[in-house]
Amino acid sequence: MNPITPVILCGGSGTRLWPRSRKAAPKPFLPLVGDSSLFEATLARASDPAHFTAPIVVAGSAHVDLIEGQSPAGNGMRLIVEPAAKNTAPAIALAAHLVPEDTVMLVCPSDHHIADEAAFLAAALEAARLAAEGWLVAFGIAPTRPETGYGYIKRGEALPGGYRIDRFVEKPDLARAVAYLAEGNYCWNGGIFAFRAGTFLDELAQHRPEMARAVREAVEQGETQGARFLPAFAPFSEIAGDSVDYAVMEETDRAAMVDADMGWSDIGNWQSLREVRADEADEAGNIARGPADLLDCRDVMVETDGPRVSVVGLDDVIVVVDGGEVLVTSSRGAANVGKLKGPSNQ
Amino acid sequence: MNPITPVILCGGSGTRLWPRSRKAAPKPFLPLVGDSSLFEATLARASDPAHFTAPIVVAGSAHVDLIEGQSPAGNGMRLIVEPAAKNTAPAIALAAHLVPEDTVMLVCPSDHHIADEAAFLAAALEAARLAAEGWLVAFGIAPTRPETGYGYIKRGEALPGGYRIDRFVEKPDLARAVAYLAEGNYCWNGGIFAFRAGTFLDELAQHRPEMARAVREAVEQGETQGARFLPAFAPFSEIAGDSVDYAVMEETDRAAMVDADMGWSDIGNWQSLREVRADEADEAGNIARGPADLLDCRDVMVETDGPRVSVVGLDDVIVVVDGGEVLVTSSRGAANVGKLKGPSNQ
Repeated sequence: MNPITPVILCGGSGTRLWPRSRKAAPKPFLPLVGDSSLFEATLARASDPAHFTAPIVVAGSAHVDLIEGQSPAGNGMRLIVEPAAKNTAPAIALAAHLVPEDTVMLVCPSDHHIADEAAFLAAALEAARLAAEGWLVAFGIAPTRPETGYGYIKRGEALPGGYRIDRFVEKPDLARAVAYLAEGNYCWNGGIFAFRAGTFLDELAQHRPEMARAVREAVEQGETQGARFLPAFAPFSEIAGDSVDYAVMEETDRAAMVDADMGWSDIGNWQSLREVRADEADEAGNIARGPADLLDCRDVMVETDGPRVSVVGLDDVIVVVDGGEVLVTSSRGAANVGKLKGPSNQ
Repeated sequence: MNPITPVILCGGSGTRLWPRSRKAAPKPFLPLVGDSSLFEATLARASDPAHFTAPIVVAGSAHVDLIEGQSPAGNGMRLIVEPAAKNTAPAIALAAHLVPEDTVMLVCPSDHHIADEAAFLAAALEAARLAAEGWLVAFGIAPTRPETGYGYIKRGEALPGGYRIDRFVEKPDLARAVAYLAEGNYCWNGGIFAFRAGTFLDELAQHRPEMARAVREAVEQGETQGARFLPAFAPFSEIAGDSVDYAVMEETDRAAMVDADMGWSDIGNWQSLREVRADEADEAGNIARGPADLLDCRDVMVETDGPRVSVVGLDDVIVVVDGGEVLVTSSRGAANVGKLKGPSNQ
């Protein structure tokens, strides 16, 4: 099989990790787990030349410096600078135009954590094999809890190395999420996909012909500047943005999935991040990054960019100090951090 | 009856209100309740010329500027600058030497809150009446909970307007504190006393003759500088410090008490302060001083000197941001704030 081209999408604002994640330094570019940023880890995960070509990164102009600064020198990366944020379907289509139509693209968000890299690689190779045969392949993430914050996909008929997708399910309520977990055939839709470039563009042309036409024009009128590719502003900015899920995956007859049980987390909020950092916890379950003094505490996470944080006599509290903002929340409260005033008026 | 001389003691470090209370700006001088500092409120509470003379304040040299800055101009205050901190018995003895022996002194800590000023005045007048007759009179604070952090005094035989003190009790364990509350004859020892100056010095000479002699020498060799009086360093610094409770009240045969049910709090920690501030709470029980954004919170208190504090989904949490330090605790944890590293290495 030909090597796979990683397509790394750097969108999203990450407001639920405020005040650490800010517009100027959003979630993908922060060293949230270990010493690497999530973006660096995403690049590294798909960098073995035995399986992968140089990556294509798609991002807005605000993050070009961060991306180029965090990319290993000489990795051959191409960077598509989106003239406007139009969700994932147009972003993937831009990348698909920059490679031969037989190329298999592995589309990866840049802000997820994957603990088991071997399982990721195995799933990527299975997905690529199906994609090469013309399937549009989603990673079906093995669910570990009745999560109501994700979309689900249901396994259908078996294929070699995977399954057809029976159906896509919007974010469920808790009762349905519990039922899905018990039923066993539902997986989380983690936003990781494998497509043959030509197949993707054909399907987009069929289901979103206006979008497909606008992307093609933006590419034809675009400009290459060294490793950067700048699609033309006018046609791209007219696009009605849409996700790859709605625009292609839920429309096509060739939707497939592979199982991926790989310690995945979208690090969607501070509680998710605490779970991913479990190996940093002391015996009382406390995790501290930066100067902290914890007395009579259990399951407390502190992250501070300088000021000392002293915590006394609390369980299940998350304290984040960053850039002169102080956030205090809990495992349950973490999901609502994006609703604060701080994230919206930074 | 002659007017009473207030004697305001400004000792104590207030480490349990760290990081708001610091060595350089300790608890008595902070506007913790309402807009006045506790020291200002203490002065004001005993300022009616119908009942009180000008006050005598006893403090260390570190706080002279704060005291003079917070005292109303022309109030006639005398300020005794202690050469060393020797606990309350020597401090009161210094003041007793500066007034005629028939003067009744009302000794008040400078860092307590008293909600009911009329009840305070009534108790002060009763206490002064007993003191004028030669009793050494403590305020018996009506207990409102089985507090284990205070000493107790037990009512004895009735006197006109008060009682003899049957006995003093050290800080009890919880079972004993519960029993005291049920029994009904135990009061908190709030550290407020009324003494005739001559009586106090006589009792001190009897029970702590060395201390009494050293204080007398420090006064005789002391120096008056305007409104300030500076006791001599050498004799005062040799004193073995002791509290008025141990040195005099537990030794004398003339210990008396008056009932004082006056909304008293020593504001001993952040939880006590939250209780005193109950009238600042919104309908969810939240109290905020400084920029705060509280979402899905109950009984949260925030105090910040500038940085915004955002709290999501928590009950019973206290967050204090001051001078680049961040403290997070709870009603139970508040009592242990003094054990943190911050208060001891400021």
